[in-house]
Amino acid sequence: MEWTREKRYLKYKDWDAQTLLNLQTQAATSPYQMHYHVHPLSGLINDPNGFSYYNGEYHLFCQSYPFGPVHGIKSWIHFASSDMVHWHYLGQAINPDSELDNAGAYSGSGLVHNGELLLAYTGNHRDKNWIRTPYQVIAKMDKNNKIVKDTNPIILPPEHVTEHFRDPQLFEHNSKYYIILGAQDKDTKTGEIDVYESDDLKTWHEVGYLDFSKEKMGYMIECPNLVFVNDQPVLIFCPQGLDKSIASYDNIYPNMYLVGKNIDLSQAKFTPAQKAPKDLDDGFDVYATQAFNAPDGNAYAISWVGLPDCTYPTDDENWANTYSQVKRLEVKDNELYQHPLDSIKSLRMDHEAISNQAHLKDHTSNQYELKLTIQPDQSGKLFLNADSDLKTGLILDFNTGDSSRLIIDRSNVGPKVNPEYGEQREVLLDLHHELNLDIFVDGSLCEIFINDGKNVATLRFFANPENQTIAFDHDLEYDADFWKMMPIM
Amino acid sequence: MEWTREKRYLKYKDWDAQTLLNLQTQAATSPYQMHYHVHPLSGLINDPNGFSYYNGEYHLFCQSYPFGPVHGIKSWIHFASSDMVHWHYLGQAINPDSELDNAGAYSGSGLVHNGELLLAYTGNHRDKNWIRTPYQVIAKMDKNNKIVKDTNPIILPPEHVTEHFRDPQLFEHNSKYYIILGAQDKDTKTGEIDVYESDDLKTWHEVGYLDFSKEKMGYMIECPNLVFVNDQPVLIFCPQGLDKSIASYDNIYPNMYLVGKNIDLSQAKFTPAQKAPKDLDDGFDVYATQAFNAPDGNAYAISWVGLPDCTYPTDDENWANTYSQVKRLEVKDNELYQHPLDSIKSLRMDHEAISNQAHLKDHTSNQYELKLTIQPDQSGKLFLNADSDLKTGLILDFNTGDSSRLIIDRSNVGPKVNPEYGEQREVLLDLHHELNLDIFVDGSLCEIFINDGKNVATLRFFANPENQTIAFDHDLEYDADFWKMMPIM
Repeated sequence: MEWTREKRYLKYKDWDAQTLLNLQTQAATSPYQMHYHVHPLSGLINDPNGFSYYNGEYHLFCQSYPFGPVHGIKSWIHFASSDMVHWHYLGQAINPDSELDNAGAYSGSGLVHNGELLLAYTGNHRDKNWIRTPYQVIAKMDKNNKIVKDTNPIILPPEHVTEHFRDPQLFEHNSKYYIILGAQDKDTKTGEIDVYESDDLKTWHEVGYLDFSKEKMGYMIECPNLVFVNDQPVLIFCPQGLDKSIASYDNIYPNMYLVGKNIDLSQAKFTPAQKAPKDLDDGFDVYATQAFNAPDGNAYAISWVGLPDCTYPTDDENWANTYSQVKRLEVKDNELYQHPLDSIKSLRMDHEAISNQAHLKDHTSNQYELKLTIQPDQSGKLFLNADSDLKTGLILDFNTGDSSRLIIDRSNVGPKVNPEYGEQREVLLDLHHELNLDIFVDGSLCEIFINDGKNVATLRFFANPENQTIAFDHDLEYDADFWKMMPIM
Repeated sequence: MEWTREKRYLKYKDWDAQTLLNLQTQAATSPYQMHYHVHPLSGLINDPNGFSYYNGEYHLFCQSYPFGPVHGIKSWIHFASSDMVHWHYLGQAINPDSELDNAGAYSGSGLVHNGELLLAYTGNHRDKNWIRTPYQVIAKMDKNNKIVKDTNPIILPPEHVTEHFRDPQLFEHNSKYYIILGAQDKDTKTGEIDVYESDDLKTWHEVGYLDFSKEKMGYMIECPNLVFVNDQPVLIFCPQGLDKSIASYDNIYPNMYLVGKNIDLSQAKFTPAQKAPKDLDDGFDVYATQAFNAPDGNAYAISWVGLPDCTYPTDDENWANTYSQVKRLEVKDNELYQHPLDSIKSLRMDHEAISNQAHLKDHTSNQYELKLTIQPDQSGKLFLNADSDLKTGLILDFNTGDSSRLIIDRSNVGPKVNPEYGEQREVLLDLHHELNLDIFVDGSLCEIFINDGKNVATLRFFANPENQTIAFDHDLEYDADFWKMMPIM
């Protein structure tokens, strides 16, 4: 089936309901499906949107195309949760049904204001000649989860940007309101973050491009996201076309972060505390991470596990992509740490403690957590979701001695996933130190928290679902805790 | 909108996907929706089907009509769970897409056999003249949740029944296979339970009507269900048109049970241990309860909370009905007890202990558990989901003294619900004994476990969602534990 433009932009009402039910069933029953992470009900999800706390619950919206594994005409779907682990679905939130968003309700953010949740998003408008205009629009959600869109955009694209002007983050800072947007400058064709300011959420004026780096940030920046973590500003963003001499990365497009010393939004000035941006995730598949400052004082982040312009094996099953678990952010010594939430422990079942023996498990049901401490001066390979002979599996190749490093290798575990961007990722470790790994596997998703969240590596992999062996290639010194995780979604 | 027969039997493919998405959103965001009970994703659900344990998980299927609050053309939808509390949706299971079930895939049951889950159901066939033939059909589910229907029915309606011949329960007993079916005798127009026997699941012979009562069981029996509880056979069934002199009930149709001394299925003989059937539930809205014997040695039951030929206020929101929580069954002194599962405690949050004061809570978020012990020789009214002045609310009017009884009164709490069948239900209690209540509220559902499950009263009620007060009408002697319950669905 060819996904022509005409087909991708077919109105939802021109699809039939049996097809949608079949797509929902196909996604739900896939052996590769996640069961304790937010995932597509059908079709494709991409960027997390509107991540917020409102009316006693956490809210999360997702970019969604319900009819296939492609970037067709997008809407927002809605989930809510008490603990950011047990999410329940609340249906379509923003449909692409107005003139402003006639070609898709694109990404954005949430801000609680006057008892409502304001959802700022990009209305992707296309005229009859397929010329695009990105409108920044606000929709308002009430306590009954009913959403009404404003009829007029709050921000029109300024003269100095191309059609690439999107992903508004709306927030309050120093008693003013700000929106930051990903933009491409019309003259230089460079990626920028454009800052807008308002006193009343109605009249907005452009402060200008955010000054946060002397380097050119590729040809476009998507999903700029500012949060405050341990009182320091942290800028999370997705530069496309970034020169690898500025910051190293392996994926097609990186999801970067920059810890700041301070920020002056009224002057569009971010003063970094790091020399250069760093990869937010050391795995293969993280993009468009959205973080927010919650009323409990923490900053929480959730990532799209999927990449633009890439394909995945579940495309053949008509659905694509998933989300990471929610991560609590911490800044220590100007580095960003990411931690699993305490609440995810509520999914743990059937605990087993295992030490030193090469063989850990034969049957995991493919939803599990494995927490490991490998002693210093060890080396070897840990196979996850392997066959019993360890001929195939996801391999964590580690050294905690002289050449300390962790290599994550998905070259030998089922169908290839975008191999043109490499099949290994390497994380450098301190010499002669123990290695702590907190590994979460859910269907075709693996998240590895390394050394208490100093690094996180997130990836998709597509093992034969019957391959459930966990084993080292030889006996060594380690302590492990294993839990099955309860399927809840 | 009129639900003509033509509209109710419109093929799913002749509905459009935007309409289905809108219906799913409307159901998900209704303030009356349940969030820790299995409920419709859209449209209407009725009988639980195929409740079973297979491949390491509990499975539950639901009669579903996705397009409105009516009994249109039915399919089975599928949920699975590790703990019978956290259910995840697995999509459409049996679609009405074969000649045998062209007018609906009706109710049935599940049996694990040879590594597959056999789903026995009634194919509701209608010919061109709308003449109905009920076919008993088997579908087979594998470990990937893929379902394939047999192309031929296993049982055709015998000559001596009318078109009302449905709801097969398939089970193994004494090394033989049995199917029991709800039936209407063609001559006498009485409700019967018809027993079939097989050695190989292929060839079935009719043993005959089950002999379990000398009384006439109305004009039809639906959903016959045999389980073994503490080594005694228990027959659960839904007689329609039952004379109230045989067994008392208030709902339009009752869901009855009969505890047996023993059963000889090869002779179709059930010997009761009770004089007459008893109401399984003392509330307003339970029907079509399905129970099964799980490998852990327990018998578990789940009920449709909804009644045939009745309407509910959410009909105006295009969805209808919900399910009870799963209940563990116990027989003591030839009486059936129903207990909440231990696993539902995992949803408890924000515990509060409260004693003796009239006022308990102002804000509950409408998902809560309230566990109460009221001392002997007290009387009063407990208001649930009340306004702050206690002018409206669901009222539990109790007396633990000389005239011990509990009256559940939904006459003064929002829109009326089938008031022609009464707005109060009464449960008689032992004189001068403490009264234990374990009350679960979830949106518009209330389940009251009375005196450790000796009675259970289940009901829908439609309070203003902002009315969240819990209070007695005066101070009295009691101890209570309150928890908010985590919304998970």
